[in-house]
Amino acid sequence: MAKSASAIGMVFTDAGEETPPHGGDLGVARRLFPGAPEPFIDLSTGINPWPYPVARFSADAFIRLPQHEVLLTVAAAAAKAYGAPSAEHVVVAPGSQILLPLVARLLAPARAIVAAPAYPELARAAALAGHDVGTMEMVERCGDARLIMVANPNNPDGRRLPRALLLKLAQRRGGLLVVDEAFMDVEPPSISLAADVAGGNVVVLRSFGKFFGLPGLRLGFALTAPPLARRLSALLGPWPVSGPALAVGAKALADTAWIERARKRLAKGAASLDAILIKAGLDIIGGTALFRLVERKAAAALFQHLGRAGIYVRTFPDRPTWLRFGLPADARARGRLRKVLASFDAT
Amino acid sequence: MAKSASAIGMVFTDAGEETPPHGGDLGVARRLFPGAPEPFIDLSTGINPWPYPVARFSADAFIRLPQHEVLLTVAAAAAKAYGAPSAEHVVVAPGSQILLPLVARLLAPARAIVAAPAYPELARAAALAGHDVGTMEMVERCGDARLIMVANPNNPDGRRLPRALLLKLAQRRGGLLVVDEAFMDVEPPSISLAADVAGGNVVVLRSFGKFFGLPGLRLGFALTAPPLARRLSALLGPWPVSGPALAVGAKALADTAWIERARKRLAKGAASLDAILIKAGLDIIGGTALFRLVERKAAAALFQHLGRAGIYVRTFPDRPTWLRFGLPADARARGRLRKVLASFDAT
Repeated sequence: MAKSASAIGMVFTDAGEETPPHGGDLGVARRLFPGAPEPFIDLSTGINPWPYPVARFSADAFIRLPQHEVLLTVAAAAAKAYGAPSAEHVVVAPGSQILLPLVARLLAPARAIVAAPAYPELARAAALAGHDVGTMEMVERCGDARLIMVANPNNPDGRRLPRALLLKLAQRRGGLLVVDEAFMDVEPPSISLAADVAGGNVVVLRSFGKFFGLPGLRLGFALTAPPLARRLSALLGPWPVSGPALAVGAKALADTAWIERARKRLAKGAASLDAILIKAGLDIIGGTALFRLVERKAAAALFQHLGRAGIYVRTFPDRPTWLRFGLPADARARGRLRKVLASFDAT
Repeated sequence: MAKSASAIGMVFTDAGEETPPHGGDLGVARRLFPGAPEPFIDLSTGINPWPYPVARFSADAFIRLPQHEVLLTVAAAAAKAYGAPSAEHVVVAPGSQILLPLVARLLAPARAIVAAPAYPELARAAALAGHDVGTMEMVERCGDARLIMVANPNNPDGRRLPRALLLKLAQRRGGLLVVDEAFMDVEPPSISLAADVAGGNVVVLRSFGKFFGLPGLRLGFALTAPPLARRLSALLGPWPVSGPALAVGAKALADTAWIERARKRLAKGAASLDAILIKAGLDIIGGTALFRLVERKAAAALFQHLGRAGIYVRTFPDRPTWLRFGLPADARARGRLRKVLASFDAT
């Protein structure tokens, strides 16, 4: 067992404090490419570029404490939209990100395995909770690790883990399986574990902001057995989520017509992006309808070329030949991407 | 030392999971008083009834991930507004509430003392972190307790703790002093410990929503030494706060003219409330410019009387003779309060 920082007094450990790089920060893009034409085309995230329409809010959303009844409404809407057994299996949070260290803490410090390649926040959360964290590609070989964290579908490569494998991993005695389903909204519902959380050995995380295109709202969910859900909700306290997030979440999660249209539009958008990437000679090695991962030897040079032309994509320090592309929002952005890719000379 | 739940495996303990009652939930008021005239006059919180004006947001506040540069701007504005040594001493969070269990966790499970009477979330946070929690009125008699949590000024009685006492409590070796300054904005700055956090044994919590009248935004701060601030920020992750909260916070915290006007208006509003309460024969036993605490033998009956007339105030299960009154927003609300109090017959 790893030495738990919190067992030795005041926590001055640095475990998990180093911030891994993330997409979506145009401040970083502008520092990297100070001469680039504005506005930047930001393809560095996997966020729906066609957001759910945000109407004007009642002033109550700001001037009142978020009301508990509305929180329960959002929990019920999330249970229905995601396929969780009930609202009591839902934890409403200000984004799924903030839940990661809290979920990792549901187990005492132990050996933890994160499926690789991985969204770096999974391993960081496990380290913050005091776990001894390893990564492996074949997560089924986790041995005696008690905490297993996977993203399904995976980010950035889009790998889907078989449901049977996940259910088997969940059944290890005394273990906990955390499945980050941040990009699950664009997948067939049958691969989600949302309906399988009642047993108490699984926590499924869902992101509202990515699929609904509203990451600035900060809204996300944990789906898990009621005792664990109560524990997580207790850690978040009585007003975990803002009034605007509750108002939009209640409406959007119940808007099945919009959800269906968005799925189709994203699939079409991903196909358009594929055509552009393929025409530019890039190898698409994975992805979901919210992003595509390409491999290319000259990826670093291509990143620079794109950035100087005002197109910001995602790099991966550990995988220098990979680039991830989010979906361009419109014909103008697609046209600029096409043109800039065509002018790239890798020699 | 208390047995730490997290040291014995999966956390199924119920410690800290029971939700104490809170003000501000009109769903509760309507269930208690189904026949009351609407709209309710909500005096059950200590929130400024004259909120900072919320302009329309740029769509970016919702459709983009909150930008790190804006987070740093808000941290700098908070450091200046509250008097913390620098932006590196500031943790930006979605409300100060969510910080309480994280702050309590900065110490390994030990004996914790919460100053009584207390906002119940302080003791709940300490219990969630695995501490052995006691309460005492004379917190200077804390003995060997390592974690001390106080609210200053205190809620609900408005007691101000002497700065010298707090600094002495902070200097205990290996200890941590947490000062919840949720209602400090309406006090003389000299009683705040915001400027004294560099030593690393103090965490000051500040609430944005109460003074600025925007609790639905979810914005709050921890002020502490940079190593602890980094630890807390790491637990919150890269996007702790919503885009709207960052946009409003950056503007409001720097708006010294509004802040000055609000302080004066609240002081005047509290004096008007005092006049009404005194005329009704109530004993004001404490408070701040954001709320008043009264004592009356027939408090339970008065609560019912007010509630049936559509005026919702705050009760305290452990102190059945206490009622807390927030500030009525306008002459109409003051008039109704005056009338309803006058019609109360305690016999």
